[in-house]
Amino acid sequence: MILMADEDYMRLAIQAAKEGHDTWTNPHVGACIVKDGQVLATGCHYHYGREHAERNAINKLTPEQLFGSTIYVTLEPCSHYGKQPPCAELLVQSGFKKVVVAALDPHPLVTGKGIKILEDAGIEVEVGLLAKEARALNPFYNFYYEHGRPYISLKQAITLDGKVAVKGERTPITNAAVKKQVLQERGDYQAIMVGAKTAIIDNPTLLTSKEGDFPPIRVVVDRRGRLLDHLDLKLLQTGPETWVLTLNEDLANTVFPDNVHVLLLPGRKARDIAQLLGEKGIQSVYLEGGPTLAKAFLDADLADDLITYLAPFYLGKQTTNGVNSQETLQLTDTKIQTFNDNIRIYGRIQHV
Amino acid sequence: MILMADEDYMRLAIQAAKEGHDTWTNPHVGACIVKDGQVLATGCHYHYGREHAERNAINKLTPEQLFGSTIYVTLEPCSHYGKQPPCAELLVQSGFKKVVVAALDPHPLVTGKGIKILEDAGIEVEVGLLAKEARALNPFYNFYYEHGRPYISLKQAITLDGKVAVKGERTPITNAAVKKQVLQERGDYQAIMVGAKTAIIDNPTLLTSKEGDFPPIRVVVDRRGRLLDHLDLKLLQTGPETWVLTLNEDLANTVFPDNVHVLLLPGRKARDIAQLLGEKGIQSVYLEGGPTLAKAFLDADLADDLITYLAPFYLGKQTTNGVNSQETLQLTDTKIQTFNDNIRIYGRIQHV
Repeated sequence: MILMADEDYMRLAIQAAKEGHDTWTNPHVGACIVKDGQVLATGCHYHYGREHAERNAINKLTPEQLFGSTIYVTLEPCSHYGKQPPCAELLVQSGFKKVVVAALDPHPLVTGKGIKILEDAGIEVEVGLLAKEARALNPFYNFYYEHGRPYISLKQAITLDGKVAVKGERTPITNAAVKKQVLQERGDYQAIMVGAKTAIIDNPTLLTSKEGDFPPIRVVVDRRGRLLDHLDLKLLQTGPETWVLTLNEDLANTVFPDNVHVLLLPGRKARDIAQLLGEKGIQSVYLEGGPTLAKAFLDADLADDLITYLAPFYLGKQTTNGVNSQETLQLTDTKIQTFNDNIRIYGRIQHV
Repeated sequence: MILMADEDYMRLAIQAAKEGHDTWTNPHVGACIVKDGQVLATGCHYHYGREHAERNAINKLTPEQLFGSTIYVTLEPCSHYGKQPPCAELLVQSGFKKVVVAALDPHPLVTGKGIKILEDAGIEVEVGLLAKEARALNPFYNFYYEHGRPYISLKQAITLDGKVAVKGERTPITNAAVKKQVLQERGDYQAIMVGAKTAIIDNPTLLTSKEGDFPPIRVVVDRRGRLLDHLDLKLLQTGPETWVLTLNEDLANTVFPDNVHVLLLPGRKARDIAQLLGEKGIQSVYLEGGPTLAKAFLDADLADDLITYLAPFYLGKQTTNGVNSQETLQLTDTKIQTFNDNIRIYGRIQHV
């Protein structure tokens, strides 16, 4: 038998966490239960609506097995009553001797509460083992609770002369390989957002090719209510949920198909949009344009990363420029990938 | 002994051609002399001012060896009297039985004249063997003679928001690895060209790191004579040859150091610049900006390829946009290379 270290058990918990899918607004969490150097069970939060990782692992064992064992869990056990009693209580009741937690709950109002329940019950608690790796399971979830707004990725397809479209026309920029990648990439976010002008000119469906029970919500920002003249857009007719964000009361009172919801914005700024989406529980947004909407987010320091697809040609005159920014923006963690003759340039925006 | 085919002998000639360096305005040419299936000698045009490839190979052999042999040569033997009698005559005098030529002379007024001398003398001549490979030895030379103007590469360093500089300021865009690459790349061209505004704002030296006897000529296009107020620029003081192209008579009458020559343009258009450089024998130009000069060449369909260096950041407001074009420009033969987090995007412009 190979002797395993604490880190190995936590790695098993992280591995287990990755078995979850469609956890939707819930984080990916994994757990690993160990006694006398033996791994007794692993568990994960498998799907939105199903049991948390701790309960999933515990359910695989008998009370005798559980008693006096140690549980490694990638995220602080929850402390609030939801569909189930909180996991921290469950761990106390299960007779664990020790709980090893990788990362604290990112919600500032909740952080440490689960730990406190465990410690108050006399359980030995250790926090921080492989915290970085565990946090990497849920970057958007962490960001959302730490910043109180969704993580926003600004995606743009530009030509070598920095253009995004022929003025007023739907303009193909990228190649088939990039189109496929974008269809896939959308599935990583909880919402796909465009401005009304883009919705009207491109008439996109904003679907993802990634299979899942929770396709991203399509969000159209239409402050002035321009969609009133374009109620036949695909986004407003079929497909998954569409939210129209507006200041226009007429639009709010318009009857739409069941998949369309109109939400009144608290104001006209990017910050108001981010706030509303945050309040609605959206943790991540893939902002696909147009440049005016993107610029509002950039200039408000509300864009977190930049995904640029570059197609090597010049679009020429009578065209729309890509997003620009008020200030110089430095990118970190840049990653360059090619898709045939197109290029994907990723970078995190350094917030000032 | 391995039996060699015609193609193998021509490949040896092409290989030999590559031994030449600093041939300046002369093409790279190689030759291979064969008799009874034996390679007797190879030769090349080794350096500007030295003998042509045919003579170089012939000089290694005795008249007895040469008589009745076959010569493989990558370019049609010359037919004009220069510093030496023409190679075509030399081949006739040397008693060759057969001459195999890869590519014809690209100069439309000369093409076929060397071949004719040989055929008139009763020598068997074959043309076209590995023509494509042989032509690839001298892309700029071929282009120059076929089009009557230099091959023009438009090089630009841009940011992700399509900017090239903060307005009126020398602005570093690319990283150290790109700077090194550009220093090297300049050495592939016979001239490095910039506009007066770029010369004044950036005060560049436009040197190459490539060692050679013929560093590229630095060309500054200054139609209006703005340099008159900036005679202390580095380009106008030291280093290799600088040509100032102007319409301004005062500039033409200004006394400069010996390395600086002022040439009067026949007109103010890109075509006039290309024509003047062509008349002066310049076969290739690396056009480094600024965007106004570059645009003039693009819109006149006088830019042949586009070398874009992209740095992944946003420069922001109060900045100068990169070159744009009147029409949509498609690129072919695109090639993408990364230099750490910077990207080099190469493409040939499809002429309409």
